[in-house]
Amino acid sequence: MNTFGNIYRLTSFGESHGGAIGGVIDGMPAGLTVDFEAIDRDLKRRRPGQSELVTARNESDAVTFLSGIYEGKTLGTPIGFTIANSDMHSNDYENLRHVYRPSHADFTYTAKYGLRDHRGGGRASARETAARIVAGSLAAQALATEGITIRAYTSAVGDIRLDADPSKLDLGKVYDNAVRCPDAKTAAEMERLIREVRSEGDSIGGIITGVISGAPAGLGEPVFGKLQAMLASAMMSINAAHGFEYGMGFDGACRRGSEMLDRFVTDADGSIKTATNHSGGIQGGISNGSDIVFRVAFKPVATLLQDVLTVNDKGEECTLRARGRHDPCVLPRAVPIVEAMASMVMFDALLANRSSRL
Amino acid sequence: MNTFGNIYRLTSFGESHGGAIGGVIDGMPAGLTVDFEAIDRDLKRRRPGQSELVTARNESDAVTFLSGIYEGKTLGTPIGFTIANSDMHSNDYENLRHVYRPSHADFTYTAKYGLRDHRGGGRASARETAARIVAGSLAAQALATEGITIRAYTSAVGDIRLDADPSKLDLGKVYDNAVRCPDAKTAAEMERLIREVRSEGDSIGGIITGVISGAPAGLGEPVFGKLQAMLASAMMSINAAHGFEYGMGFDGACRRGSEMLDRFVTDADGSIKTATNHSGGIQGGISNGSDIVFRVAFKPVATLLQDVLTVNDKGEECTLRARGRHDPCVLPRAVPIVEAMASMVMFDALLANRSSRL
Amino acid sequence: MNTFGNIYRLTSFGESHGGAIGGVIDGMPAGLTVDFEAIDRDLKRRRPGQSELVTARNESDAVTFLSGIYEGKTLGTPIGFTIANSDMHSNDYENLRHVYRPSHADFTYTAKYGLRDHRGGGRASARETAARIVAGSLAAQALATEGITIRAYTSAVGDIRLDADPSKLDLGKVYDNAVRCPDAKTAAEMERLIREVRSEGDSIGGIITGVISGAPAGLGEPVFGKLQAMLASAMMSINAAHGFEYGMGFDGACRRGSEMLDRFVTDADGSIKTATNHSGGIQGGISNGSDIVFRVAFKPVATLLQDVLTVNDKGEECTLRARGRHDPCVLPRAVPIVEAMASMVMFDALLANRSSRL
Amino acid sequence: MNTFGNIYRLTSFGESHGGAIGGVIDGMPAGLTVDFEAIDRDLKRRRPGQSELVTARNESDAVTFLSGIYEGKTLGTPIGFTIANSDMHSNDYENLRHVYRPSHADFTYTAKYGLRDHRGGGRASARETAARIVAGSLAAQALATEGITIRAYTSAVGDIRLDADPSKLDLGKVYDNAVRCPDAKTAAEMERLIREVRSEGDSIGGIITGVISGAPAGLGEPVFGKLQAMLASAMMSINAAHGFEYGMGFDGACRRGSEMLDRFVTDADGSIKTATNHSGGIQGGISNGSDIVFRVAFKPVATLLQDVLTVNDKGEECTLRARGRHDPCVLPRAVPIVEAMASMVMFDALLANRSSRL
Repeated sequence: MNTFGNIYRLTSFGESHGGAIGGVIDGMPAGLTVDFEAIDRDLKRRRPGQSELVTARNESDAVTFLSGIYEGKTLGTPIGFTIANSDMHSNDYENLRHVYRPSHADFTYTAKYGLRDHRGGGRASARETAARIVAGSLAAQALATEGITIRAYTSAVGDIRLDADPSKLDLGKVYDNAVRCPDAKTAAEMERLIREVRSEGDSIGGIITGVISGAPAGLGEPVFGKLQAMLASAMMSINAAHGFEYGMGFDGACRRGSEMLDRFVTDADGSIKTATNHSGGIQGGISNGSDIVFRVAFKPVATLLQDVLTVNDKGEECTLRARGRHDPCVLPRAVPIVEAMASMVMFDALLANRSSRL
Repeated sequence: MNTFGNIYRLTSFGESHGGAIGGVIDGMPAGLTVDFEAIDRDLKRRRPGQSELVTARNESDAVTFLSGIYEGKTLGTPIGFTIANSDMHSNDYENLRHVYRPSHADFTYTAKYGLRDHRGGGRASARETAARIVAGSLAAQALATEGITIRAYTSAVGDIRLDADPSKLDLGKVYDNAVRCPDAKTAAEMERLIREVRSEGDSIGGIITGVISGAPAGLGEPVFGKLQAMLASAMMSINAAHGFEYGMGFDGACRRGSEMLDRFVTDADGSIKTATNHSGGIQGGISNGSDIVFRVAFKPVATLLQDVLTVNDKGEECTLRARGRHDPCVLPRAVPIVEAMASMVMFDALLANRSSRL
Repeated sequence: MNTFGNIYRLTSFGESHGGAIGGVIDGMPAGLTVDFEAIDRDLKRRRPGQSELVTARNESDAVTFLSGIYEGKTLGTPIGFTIANSDMHSNDYENLRHVYRPSHADFTYTAKYGLRDHRGGGRASARETAARIVAGSLAAQALATEGITIRAYTSAVGDIRLDADPSKLDLGKVYDNAVRCPDAKTAAEMERLIREVRSEGDSIGGIITGVISGAPAGLGEPVFGKLQAMLASAMMSINAAHGFEYGMGFDGACRRGSEMLDRFVTDADGSIKTATNHSGGIQGGISNGSDIVFRVAFKPVATLLQDVLTVNDKGEECTLRARGRHDPCVLPRAVPIVEAMASMVMFDALLANRSSRL
Repeated sequence: MNTFGNIYRLTSFGESHGGAIGGVIDGMPAGLTVDFEAIDRDLKRRRPGQSELVTARNESDAVTFLSGIYEGKTLGTPIGFTIANSDMHSNDYENLRHVYRPSHADFTYTAKYGLRDHRGGGRASARETAARIVAGSLAAQALATEGITIRAYTSAVGDIRLDADPSKLDLGKVYDNAVRCPDAKTAAEMERLIREVRSEGDSIGGIITGVISGAPAGLGEPVFGKLQAMLASAMMSINAAHGFEYGMGFDGACRRGSEMLDRFVTDADGSIKTATNHSGGIQGGISNGSDIVFRVAFKPVATLLQDVLTVNDKGEECTLRARGRHDPCVLPRAVPIVEAMASMVMFDALLANRSSRL
């Protein structure tokens, strides 16, 4: 199950320290003029080493397209691509060959497969998400031709929160700072917290908010393919994600129906809208034309710069010594991944909707 | 997309006021001795009219199996089944033919398909979930043969919360009360709140906690088929669900890594376990042998016993008059649905895992 | 794997002597005005008991639609349907509980599943194909709105063959005779042969030719979803099918390239066509606008009115005594099934093609 | 739809003259010790330039594995791989940018996608099948651990035919000659015919027979996933395939049931077998333990060393001048492709069967 999507599909491959990571994008319609710079920009937003807030692994993360694009346009055929693995310190990991790091996937991969590539987390490494950026960036370009835009931002790091209504924020500023928060003041507080946590050899988690604008009413396949189910599946497939909510979410759900009702009103131009957006832009699993708003919780990364006790594959207790580089906070790098996954979901929904009516 | 699952698959069909609802279960292995009484019990737990806390629609919800079972055992062939629609007051809905109820799916279905069956919510009705109970109940029976059990309970209604560690609760008591909360005292408070809300013609939402016990380490397909992604997709496909979290969830995610680390320890019998369970039984998308714990937020139902302002399909403002029967709180009836969906996910993961090693 | 199709999907269920057979059609777009009489007509063409050439089992084969259609139009939601099993002489089959009939599926189902429903062939019965007629008939109605028509006919029974170019035949006459051959003279010869074979307690196979007209150039997903691959899969999934070919087929394949080349020419109206059709309307897996022509071989049915030697489930030799009713030739009843499967393939391809270009 | 298979899946990508071709193999269980030399051998059997009978394009066809294999064993994670395109004479094709070659995919790709990569056939090139060899070779290695072997051979070129019972042939000799026919005398005749056809600037087609030995009874998902339907889909997805038959095929289908019946008999060791194999090893869509025997017709390749008349994309008539290199007969190179596709189908069926019983 390394394929995501129904009509627009990404099949990804690659271990952190293998020959390369990459993927195949199937289902991209023919005729999209590809903006390669936008893909590079999106990859750069995800890659490590870009600020002091994230891991120092220095990957150039340059994507090589092998097929599916000719003379700048998509052909309708599958788009194969690779991203080389470089700056690999595989020997750094030799001591982990027989050790199960706490709250990592070492133990479970071994339980499932009987063996694993222990170097850099192998397939469980978040490095795999670079492939998602490529597919998501292309999807976003296709969505843009229909006026649909997708933006995410860090809305909480630890207890530093940005609770503003997303529609009141200037989401064009998200990438202006390292923490990916559109409010400069909150961003500064978040960065201070991350530095503090880092200096203690600890890590911290938080919340990313996603906003999808410009989607027409009618997207989403009701019942099992509800838009919120597709988005939840997409988001919860990202490493470290521990929660998903949309619209009123957990807090609003515990309130009264009369407070949460979204009245319909008619615009001056005759179009029907909701006066409020507790529904988060989705009703009955289908978009209603309002902004689609969701939030994803990301746990603090499990690799700490502290010695921790654990066991090896013989069940013997051992100490995991603190090593060189890690992300104290995954949120900044997860923002473009959330955008990529949401883009894939929405473009898939858009294509599916082409068959909704005879 | 009315099919759920990869190897164990349910394809459901049916509108609330059509000829019948039902489904086809494909991928059930041959040789399961079917406990029909257990299926009826599970359907009964979901059906309306069973207590004063839920809608009075009186459906017997008797399932008729049409295929796939012979002389009490599954054949390995698809299991077709129907559940008759009865006690339909379709004329009650004639006034809704041209009206878009707020926070319902009337508007979005019309936007998507150009037409809809307006009677009782049509396909968007939660009545569809009865089909899920059938498939989930059969999955649970198959899981039980491997020692895996799944239980859910109401852990919050409005601000009445049961915050106890699920492993400390006696989950055998969930169905002892109408609100489906294993703690009698909290249950009584929840019921009082629901009655109060109902008397006001209002509704209230809350949270359901799910617990999967006995799952071996190794279930879940990492990357896009992570166990949490499959569970999230399953839960968010249930009507009214607005949030999903597992393990540490939203709150724990905002804390420090050092607080959330699950140390591995070796049992007296030599098996490796985690000393704590912030990971919610899943690491790297794969079960680790601990209880899998998740929570689902359900919004307050949108049908109120109050007059509400809305618009019709011409965009004209109109008043929706309060009508006879509705659920003031969807939680009690959603508990068995959460169990059913989790059972389908886990059985599907179990079958998929049969191909994890040569 | 009881689901056929990608976007337009049929999931079928049912054993020959179970409660009912039926299915769920998912992916039918909203807005088709359903012609119920056409569905009944198509079912009637397949059902047994309609002439002396086929089995006497008397099924009314009336379909009951349970969902997905409202006020005569498709809703875009899944269409659930059942067809009752009647005139079942289940006791006729008690003697087969432990016997493996030669060239039937008794032995292989038991090998696969460890048990089987032995009555009337269980799931292996061709009775299952009635569900395909329903889905195919609806697909044909949708295709007709785009000017695509599909017709099949019996082109060989034993060594009686109709070798005429399909485009020279009046396919409107196919259902004028019991054997489903558009040439009256050949039809009479075929019928005489079937009667002769029947009087000997034997059976006979043959070939059905299918013709798809009006399909635009561009249908079919190249590589694994080539139109011929989808058609082959569809046809070879029909009981008793032993061969599939299209265009030049086996015979033409063994000739020279220079004889088989289809020159392109430009019509008076400027459209590009092929002067000949050795390609059978498909090039590179994609339709080219010409008629799509294919042939399917059906083996003689394995149930004979002769005593035959076989073994039981203990491996003991035993004699299978000739019983009352059977089809001496499956071809006449297979003609509408071939049409139904081709209709599903083509409609699926048409919907898939809606995503071929941005 | 560039993915083949359900549990064991190949997603292929690549145009003939793009950056590379390749694929992702998903669903390979962990723990297979990979025989890389066998993969190279299989690729070599397919690649051009290996004898005077086939095209002179000189591809080394070396596969580079990028993931999914570690220290010589499969990890259970996706296996990404690429095969470089070299010896590309892309300029040779500039004259084809606006021309539709007869009986090629130029016209249909343009009709479908609105544009195409005209160089070397683009995605429609048989070069894509190299990716299938890689996935098929790995599947064959996994099947071998269960005692299942798959062999194909050229059984007809034009009217030169090898009609011998496949079980009487020494299939170990298939690759001893350039034409891939296990009978040396027939092989010599076939080669002579191919040389003759070549000298005339013409091409010739023929038939490949496939034999699957050692498969246990029970493989294949009845109804739509019948083993013959999966094999047919696999074979008809190969470039130039125009027909598929198994067991008695077209010829046997037209004979009487009494001639075609496969009697069951009990072996000395108590196992049940069929005395004859008209069923081709499959009954009711499920393997019965006998050899599975099928035949695939391949048309003569459409590229001739003769000037041919055609039209360009404006519909103007033009002459296609004969060019340098082409295959006069596709059969020799198609033999390993047939083996590869059959291996994928059988391994997929084997894995699916792990869920047939509780």
